Amino acid sequence: MQKGTTRVNVKDRFWKRYIDVVRHEVVPYQWEVLNDRIPDAEPSHAIENFRIAAGESDGEFYGMVFQDSDVAKWLEAVAYLLETKRDPELEALADDVIELLGRAQQPDGYLNTYYTVKEPGKRWTNLRDNHELYCAGHLIEAAVAYFRATGKRRFLDIMCKYADYIGTVFGRGEGQISGYDGHQEIELALLRLYEATGNENYLKLSQYFIDQRGQQPHYFDREKEARGETGRFWYDGGYRYHQAHIPVREQKQAVGHAVRALYMYTAMAGLAAKTGDESLKQACKTLWENVTKRQMYITGGVGSSECGESFTFDFDLPNDTAYAETCASIALVFWARRMLELETDGKYADVMERALYNGTISGMDLDGKKFFYVNPLEVWPKACERHDKRHVKPVRKKWFSCACCPPNLARLIASIGHYIYSQTSDALFVHLYVGSDIRTELGGRSVEIVQETNYPWDGTVRLTVLPESPGEFTIGLRVPGWCRGATLTINGEKVDMVALIQKGYAYIKRIWKKGDQVELVFPMPVERIKAHPQVRANAGKVALQRGPIVYCLEEVDNGPNLANLFLPRDAHLEAHFEPDLLEGVVVITGTAERMDESAWNDELYRSSEPQTYQVPFRTIPYYVWCNRGEGEMTVWVNEKWGHQS
Amino acid sequence: MQKGTTRVNVKDRFWKRYIDVVRHEVVPYQWEVLNDRIPDAEPSHAIENFRIAAGESDGEFYGMVFQDSDVAKWLEAVAYLLETKRDPELEALADDVIELLGRAQQPDGYLNTYYTVKEPGKRWTNLRDNHELYCAGHLIEAAVAYFRATGKRRFLDIMCKYADYIGTVFGRGEGQISGYDGHQEIELALLRLYEATGNENYLKLSQYFIDQRGQQPHYFDREKEARGETGRFWYDGGYRYHQAHIPVREQKQAVGHAVRALYMYTAMAGLAAKTGDESLKQACKTLWENVTKRQMYITGGVGSSECGESFTFDFDLPNDTAYAETCASIALVFWARRMLELETDGKYADVMERALYNGTISGMDLDGKKFFYVNPLEVWPKACERHDKRHVKPVRKKWFSCACCPPNLARLIASIGHYIYSQTSDALFVHLYVGSDIRTELGGRSVEIVQETNYPWDGTVRLTVLPESPGEFTIGLRVPGWCRGATLTINGEKVDMVALIQKGYAYIKRIWKKGDQVELVFPMPVERIKAHPQVRANAGKVALQRGPIVYCLEEVDNGPNLANLFLPRDAHLEAHFEPDLLEGVVVITGTAERMDESAWNDELYRSSEPQTYQVPFRTIPYYVWCNRGEGEMTVWVNEKWGHQS
Repeated sequence: MQKGTTRVNVKDRFWKRYIDVVRHEVVPYQWEVLNDRIPDAEPSHAIENFRIAAGESDGEFYGMVFQDSDVAKWLEAVAYLLETKRDPELEALADDVIELLGRAQQPDGYLNTYYTVKEPGKRWTNLRDNHELYCAGHLIEAAVAYFRATGKRRFLDIMCKYADYIGTVFGRGEGQISGYDGHQEIELALLRLYEATGNENYLKLSQYFIDQRGQQPHYFDREKEARGETGRFWYDGGYRYHQAHIPVREQKQAVGHAVRALYMYTAMAGLAAKTGDESLKQACKTLWENVTKRQMYITGGVGSSECGESFTFDFDLPNDTAYAETCASIALVFWARRMLELETDGKYADVMERALYNGTISGMDLDGKKFFYVNPLEVWPKACERHDKRHVKPVRKKWFSCACCPPNLARLIASIGHYIYSQTSDALFVHLYVGSDIRTELGGRSVEIVQETNYPWDGTVRLTVLPESPGEFTIGLRVPGWCRGATLTINGEKVDMVALIQKGYAYIKRIWKKGDQVELVFPMPVERIKAHPQVRANAGKVALQRGPIVYCLEEVDNGPNLANLFLPRDAHLEAHFEPDLLEGVVVITGTAERMDESAWNDELYRSSEPQTYQVPFRTIPYYVWCNRGEGEMTVWVNEKWGHQS
Repeated sequence: MQKGTTRVNVKDRFWKRYIDVVRHEVVPYQWEVLNDRIPDAEPSHAIENFRIAAGESDGEFYGMVFQDSDVAKWLEAVAYLLETKRDPELEALADDVIELLGRAQQPDGYLNTYYTVKEPGKRWTNLRDNHELYCAGHLIEAAVAYFRATGKRRFLDIMCKYADYIGTVFGRGEGQISGYDGHQEIELALLRLYEATGNENYLKLSQYFIDQRGQQPHYFDREKEARGETGRFWYDGGYRYHQAHIPVREQKQAVGHAVRALYMYTAMAGLAAKTGDESLKQACKTLWENVTKRQMYITGGVGSSECGESFTFDFDLPNDTAYAETCASIALVFWARRMLELETDGKYADVMERALYNGTISGMDLDGKKFFYVNPLEVWPKACERHDKRHVKPVRKKWFSCACCPPNLARLIASIGHYIYSQTSDALFVHLYVGSDIRTELGGRSVEIVQETNYPWDGTVRLTVLPESPGEFTIGLRVPGWCRGATLTINGEKVDMVALIQKGYAYIKRIWKKGDQVELVFPMPVERIKAHPQVRANAGKVALQRGPIVYCLEEVDNGPNLANLFLPRDAHLEAHFEPDLLEGVVVITGTAERMDESAWNDELYRSSEPQTYQVPFRTIPYYVWCNRGEGEMTVWVNEKWGHQS
């Protein structure tokens, strides 16, 4: 979203801490993992695979078929870190890896260690399963990020050579493969490569992959036949898993593997924005409505089934068997950002914010040392022994052998500055309220804007506008969807904000002069949120939200058996900041009611009216759950109708 | 439970209909299945296997390793049907099968078609998995039932010969196998054989199997080693699946495969009653408390996990992913009956009744043509597409390739007369209120008792006592645990019942004369039942019960989205009999509240207070659910605290 000279410097208390965790913990740790230097972790072999491919080491390929993408995501995270703060040592390390990649690249441009080392001669024979273009995509994303951060072309050149080669292999021409990858990623990466280079071939190749997907006769069938494979694909529904069951423009319902789906929608939105393709834009909007109004958890989690890590069907949002993969929420952020390019509508930024402050960062502990792949909304640790809940881990794990989530989260957090603003030549949009400086050009002049806020804990935001000279341009300020009664002052004078709002943004067009102050106040009362009545799992339940933050109850604060805690409809709810708790969070407290178990006499079922008693309760932000040991957790709380007794 | 000359004749409107369904539908259909004459069903081959074993047909063994048990269960059901009504044609059919069994029996007494035909020479090499003694057990049960029903010894003799042979093979003596079966069944069967024959060897062999189970060094380990098998057993926990993880007297918690567990507990209770073994009795009582107060659904369903069709842990009773196999509820009835021999306590008969009127017969449609293996307490048909709910079928199926439940239900229903009464020499206990005549001996004289009732729809029960001559004996009448305010009259005179009650039975000891009339009235108001607060799945929910019948809501009566229906705490609930509905049932009706979906504007989450509107609702007995097509169903209904709006 940043134009050439735009620079965003994140100074936010909330996000800066996370960036530092990525810088000081996640990225260095992953580097050790990639080099197999963590004794108690499963070997990664990812760097070694490149050495072998480069002919500099003996040995055999080891790891997932998409092991290369771990290196790519690490490089991409490093790039964003370098963008926020120069670090010659880290940059030298990255340069070495990039040189290694260059040496592993084949003369024709091909770059994939699995096929180079393990199955030479078998390139492009199993696009459905083997993530060949997926790996290429991640490397391209990293190369673009590294170029933007450092200005160095080496990595970008390597990947352009690879992309050029891919462009010769794939397409509808004679002798070309009319296929596409089983795991979408190359599509959005080529778009970024186009943005970085201006080379339209990359845009067209991305379009080709999107347009060709799901066409008949089906490429995956032909490819399978060529492999001599028989038997059905394990996931039902004719490549619904890969969103390749029908052409993308005909898809109205999000299905299959959530990360694949959302990476594809991200590319579709980006392409539609670049090309003005109306049918593609319409498909994006239809799918957006389906995902965000039918299949999204309140945390911004998506993918409600462990089987295929996938979407299921409308309103099927079980809390305790949720999948809600960290990567899927991250992908939702990517998609939302691209949707904002299609249309400046607050609903996209609302979802982006929801995922950012809840379902993405819940995937990592506060120290950056442990990770969730699955982000349930309700956990009873004992029940995780059940076969149907084994994917739900009651505590975060150190690393995963399929290590997609930790580095994905690292690259998202390190690049948070890319999600705050977007702009046209004479308008700046503020999508997120994150303490930061932005230097850019607006209306032909250089402008710096300083954003100060204690968001997400406080809804007051101050923008100081510093154009190098006075001039007219527009600032579009997002009014969060959760907010009622927002107020706006400019240089201390109250402005009628409602009149300025269009689709969730307040537009201020004026002649700005140096030092103009805009103050926004977004009141943050505690909100009691209900789910749509069709969400059977949440019937009779309520969730608490304050500002963008979704809350949860934990056993450590409220004792075991959280299901047996009832929140009266008229309960008074207090919010206050606790600086020493969980790196500083606003907690919500109040009085709830509990069934009196002591009156039960050991019976399992009985007819008499149960007695309740009052108990204090405390909720914490969902994203920090499970930072104080194992225990029960729930986002949705049973509600007591009627009045506090 | 019947002494030699005791005869029970079931005339009950409710149960007679079920027995007729078994007689006219289930048993004839199964006969066709066993003979592979149902074109659209998977072949059974069970009869053919015996022909091959007898050397009368060529071909290979086909079917499950326990295919023989299908023939056994059919024969057992036939025996009970013959007991209730002579049928020379059916008896001749059974006699033919019995003769075939005799011809398939090996000279040493061994009788198992799998090992005789498919793996000769491999007898007793895989007790853990291959159900060899399990099949023997079912054949023994059938032989005992056939002997009691017809007086014919042929089948009994065949099985005594087999049991005698088993007695030489198994035990702690030199050259004997110190093992036991992976699927308990032989233990309870040998007990019945002992009861039928008085041969103490069978009692001792049963005891041996129970005592040896779970001892170290572990037999299954030694056996596995002998087979040269490596690798872990698929189910976690060191033979918890088979309840062979520790010796049975040390087991405090029901674990593993529910049917295996309950068949074992049935044998343990029977043995403890016969032998007076105190430690075994204590183990039974401990396990009874665990199952019925911690791991039982309100329907009498048990086994809450599909993985291993097994028990899980205390209070883990999810409604929508329940397993609650029909066979497990049947086994719970068996166990309860045996517990009543240990101790005349109404709590056992309460559970027996609960399972009989709810979780067992729910396994079959009213026509006896379709069956449930799994008996969920909540169904959203669309969600059965989810991988974690695929075991939950929204509609009953015609038959199963693993056909354990239909014939098991057939034998239970056909033998319902065995569960109504039990007796000592001078006391008769009435455990169930089922319209029937019993002829027996009490206090040395012949007595007939006629029980008339419209149970379970009406709580009035009339017993006419007809001793051949006046004399003293005791009648113990169960006062159901669900009942408050039961009244008793003898020959029209009210008796203070409370003073007569001990552990759930009202004892009437008097000199009975011909024509004495006892009238019991058990009031049957609609009860709102709550689950123990530790049952997280039912927090905030209520179930309706009237008499022994547990109710449920169906979509066909109440529209879709049953979760969105809230039952106010003070809702007036009406019960009335509908003669033309589902073969005649009492339904419960009232007014509930629904969230107004139309006010939702397509949002998935929102903060405003949802509006409700009143709707009439109708609940039907759980056991008849899914007799009117596919749709949602729920037993537990969301409750609205406070008053009807």
